[in-house]
Amino acid sequence: MSDERLAQQVAFLTEADKLKTILRRTPITDGSRPENSAEHSWHLVLAAMTLAEYAPPDVGLRRVLELVTVHDLVEIDAGDTFAYDAAAYETKAARELAAAERIFGLLPADQASWFRACWDEFETNQTIEAKYANALDRLQALLQNMKSGGGSWREHGITRTDVLRRMAPVERELPELWQFVLDVVNRFFSECPTSPSC
Amino acid sequence: MSDERLAQQVAFLTEADKLKTILRRTPITDGSRPENSAEHSWHLVLAAMTLAEYAPPDVGLRRVLELVTVHDLVEIDAGDTFAYDAAAYETKAARELAAAERIFGLLPADQASWFRACWDEFETNQTIEAKYANALDRLQALLQNMKSGGGSWREHGITRTDVLRRMAPVERELPELWQFVLDVVNRFFSECPTSPSC
Repeated sequence: MSDERLAQQVAFLTEADKLKTILRRTPITDGSRPENSAEHSWHLVLAAMTLAEYAPPDVGLRRVLELVTVHDLVEIDAGDTFAYDAAAYETKAARELAAAERIFGLLPADQASWFRACWDEFETNQTIEAKYANALDRLQALLQNMKSGGGSWREHGITRTDVLRRMAPVERELPELWQFVLDVVNRFFSECPTSPSC
Repeated sequence: MSDERLAQQVAFLTEADKLKTILRRTPITDGSRPENSAEHSWHLVLAAMTLAEYAPPDVGLRRVLELVTVHDLVEIDAGDTFAYDAAAYETKAARELAAAERIFGLLPADQASWFRACWDEFETNQTIEAKYANALDRLQALLQNMKSGGGSWREHGITRTDVLRRMAPVERELPELWQFVLDVVNRFFSECPTSPSC
């Protein structure tokens, strides 16, 4: 161990603390405040453990836990891009790439590469672990909105079609959970046919 | 999959959301507010990944990630017990045991047992994974206090002796990091010989 190596690791961990200040559009379930991206990431780790039986049997759960832990760190610089904001999505990739360079670059080079590979794997969404992780990311937002009485759907006038498009990874990767998603969406939008007026 | 099984898993995951409202005594690093136990747990997962090279070489990292993710869930009912509050520690075990029964009991029986075993393993602190996880729990609080200019040490008049006693698991389980801990503590308490007057 070198002092310099440990100093870089501590610098990364204390910089990562800022993820606790990045606010998402989804609220916590009591509706009292927006969820932040650090506690959201923890919730995804817990969801990955709880719902593992619905993932493909050969999924590497340790890798899933690593991916969801790392996946939002770039938001420290790039901010949270609202899932239903098409304009912001046009600049999302460039903003997050620069953030990844800086934030993972705080670490010693070998670890910078390793953490960057985690983030890349989640973003490119090709491995079974990344697909499970991305599907959980969508499903968790649905649970937050469901429990808080509409959450970001209600606040931003999101339509049933928008939500179902956003939830498509759940249909693909966690097909056993799709009926549950449909039930949640149908219940909300039958009570709120045009959510802004709810 | 049964609808009932999934309903129990969803009930557990949405109940777990309440950990985001449980406040610790340590602040986030900018000092602007207390840290909550959900984002703290995420930070421990990230720390376990970042500092794994200092753990024993045969530590099971997936298990460590599971333990730190679950370790504070009982606080939803039992609250966060301040590390330096001896009186509260007398009732901590009983409060947390009742909480574990209720919260993990929301899950299907097989998963209730599995999650309960995670929590028991962290609490009894006998496996190398639990020892690494517990040492990280102490170290992360030190980093929060270090970066926020004293944090809970300053606010509650904690002494150097108290802090070093609290950090003993780091000395035992992560000996390569002990000099770093001593340097942080010595720097803070040399500037702040009696922290309440700082």
